[in-house]
Amino acid sequence: MTAQKSDAPVNPKWTRMLTGDRPTGALHLGHYVGSLKMRVELQEKIDTFVLIADLHVLTTRNANLDEIGPNIRECVLDYLAVGIDPDKSTIYLQSLVPEVLELFWLFMPLVSVPRAQRIPTLKEQVRDLKLETASMALLSYPVLQSADILMVRGDVVPVGKDQASHVELTREIARRFNQTYGEVFPEPEAPLTPVLIGTDGQAKASKSIGNVIMLSDPPDVVEKKVRAMFTDPKRIRADIPGTVEGNPVFIYHEEFNDDQDEVAGLADRYRQGKVGDVEVKTKLAAAINRFLDPIRDRREKFAAKKGLVEEIIEAGSARAREECHQTLEAAREAMGLTYFRGGDGVEVSK
Amino acid sequence: MTAQKSDAPVNPKWTRMLTGDRPTGALHLGHYVGSLKMRVELQEKIDTFVLIADLHVLTTRNANLDEIGPNIRECVLDYLAVGIDPDKSTIYLQSLVPEVLELFWLFMPLVSVPRAQRIPTLKEQVRDLKLETASMALLSYPVLQSADILMVRGDVVPVGKDQASHVELTREIARRFNQTYGEVFPEPEAPLTPVLIGTDGQAKASKSIGNVIMLSDPPDVVEKKVRAMFTDPKRIRADIPGTVEGNPVFIYHEEFNDDQDEVAGLADRYRQGKVGDVEVKTKLAAAINRFLDPIRDRREKFAAKKGLVEEIIEAGSARAREECHQTLEAAREAMGLTYFRGGDGVEVSK
Repeated sequence: MTAQKSDAPVNPKWTRMLTGDRPTGALHLGHYVGSLKMRVELQEKIDTFVLIADLHVLTTRNANLDEIGPNIRECVLDYLAVGIDPDKSTIYLQSLVPEVLELFWLFMPLVSVPRAQRIPTLKEQVRDLKLETASMALLSYPVLQSADILMVRGDVVPVGKDQASHVELTREIARRFNQTYGEVFPEPEAPLTPVLIGTDGQAKASKSIGNVIMLSDPPDVVEKKVRAMFTDPKRIRADIPGTVEGNPVFIYHEEFNDDQDEVAGLADRYRQGKVGDVEVKTKLAAAINRFLDPIRDRREKFAAKKGLVEEIIEAGSARAREECHQTLEAAREAMGLTYFRGGDGVEVSK
Repeated sequence: MTAQKSDAPVNPKWTRMLTGDRPTGALHLGHYVGSLKMRVELQEKIDTFVLIADLHVLTTRNANLDEIGPNIRECVLDYLAVGIDPDKSTIYLQSLVPEVLELFWLFMPLVSVPRAQRIPTLKEQVRDLKLETASMALLSYPVLQSADILMVRGDVVPVGKDQASHVELTREIARRFNQTYGEVFPEPEAPLTPVLIGTDGQAKASKSIGNVIMLSDPPDVVEKKVRAMFTDPKRIRADIPGTVEGNPVFIYHEEFNDDQDEVAGLADRYRQGKVGDVEVKTKLAAAINRFLDPIRDRREKFAAKKGLVEEIIEAGSARAREECHQTLEAAREAMGLTYFRGGDGVEVSK
């Protein structure tokens, strides 16, 4: 019964992780299953950096820039609510670590234009955003993402399938830099993060599709969304035997219900045509609400603390900045770019 | 006789100029005619920024990075030697103003990939540097150059013909930014700088071709280079009438000889076949050495002052940094990117 439970593999050799999100607003159960759960677990064991990648929003001319600020706040509140602890994880804002753009520029000579154009997300984004052509920002942001990753010199970057090609570029850049100038960067491992099916049965839960339950949804919204969930379409009456495997309602039950005996009983009866959808869904809504109750409580508590989010971002960004500074120094040192750096510069006498 | 003297047009409305060089080493007479002369003149009238663009050297993987530091020093010594006054001109190093990369990133969404690929210098550089493909740095450095230019919000950027397409991009970026987010950037004028013919008669004097006289060449090297200069090839004997127009020796005479009566006399006799090349060249070498004497003296004096170049670059870069900071703030303000900026951020209460 637990075969579908999402547990990412953890390599005991990992010492430092980079992970993060674009600030597109509040997070949902898909984020929880995909990455938040793993972050909360790993922050106890390894050095964890959580990046809020606001510079990545600036890849097209018509981005909704006025939403970025509020979205960052929602994102951080969700982090805190699920248990990401700013004393254990470094939560930071990309634009407050502008040094990453220096590293980005040092990497740009190492990537050919055709190589950047081959990254599959580029064509996808041009299509999805209905653009006539890609902007230079869109073409080069995987290089910026590589700088984000290599900046903290971590050995693990869990990513979704859509981002795997970016980490492949990152590994190439690390390799090429090390070969050209000397060993500075690790080639990070990129374990694939688990994916939660959408409430409508689509492969991916996504806010833009609208098939998600938000971590901050109130109980009645959760109930409503669960009632509307996609189940076995062939089961038009409660007495028809149904399919449990791949059924979103049961996948969510297995993922979020703390009473797996209840889930096993429901699954048996479902297969035999001895339980109605209403009962299965009512119990799922209750289970998800049990799961979300402490998360919503903590969120409310944190949201009420004036200045808390700002403090966390400031402190985390200061630490990330220090890290980036050290990495930049190491990269410059390897490249021989040590002139005019307060004491380390070229000889003055001629 | 003075028709060929290079004097760039000066617009009395100009208030601030950006100009500069890649740190490729010591400068030569072509630089003097093309830009140094104008800088020395204009620094008395308008706010002058002189950029040493070291980040632009990093456009290909195999750049000679260890030469950058010493080249910067040579470049600054030549500036000082010809009379660029650090109390009047802000001499600064690009990599010491890393904020320019933030502005660069804000501009990247405004430039499409095909637009960047259309810039003629791209293909030229791929060909000249014998590259298989362009690097991402090579493709995007005209956008970085635009950030350099717009960072100081100047209204004039004198450039060589080969750079004119970059300033055209700069003007487009300024226009597009202003249209999209609100008026922040001027569209700078880009008067073409005069070009000095090479000592070998080639259209352009360039160190890589080896057809130049350096500002720091000692007198005997100047004499040697002048003796080897290209003249009228049809004039195989001193008694054959020669052509003065387009003749490198006479162009240099007109440009650098402080005794234009002597030049007029030589030209007359040359046209009539009444003067030998040796006399014309000996007088040219003497004239160039008279011109270079005070420059070489000042250069030596400045080179002997330990720490001077470093001080100048540090002070200039600090001022440029302040300027860039203000421009970035204005750009962020216009774009609505004012979150988490110490007090100007989003509202904290929910």
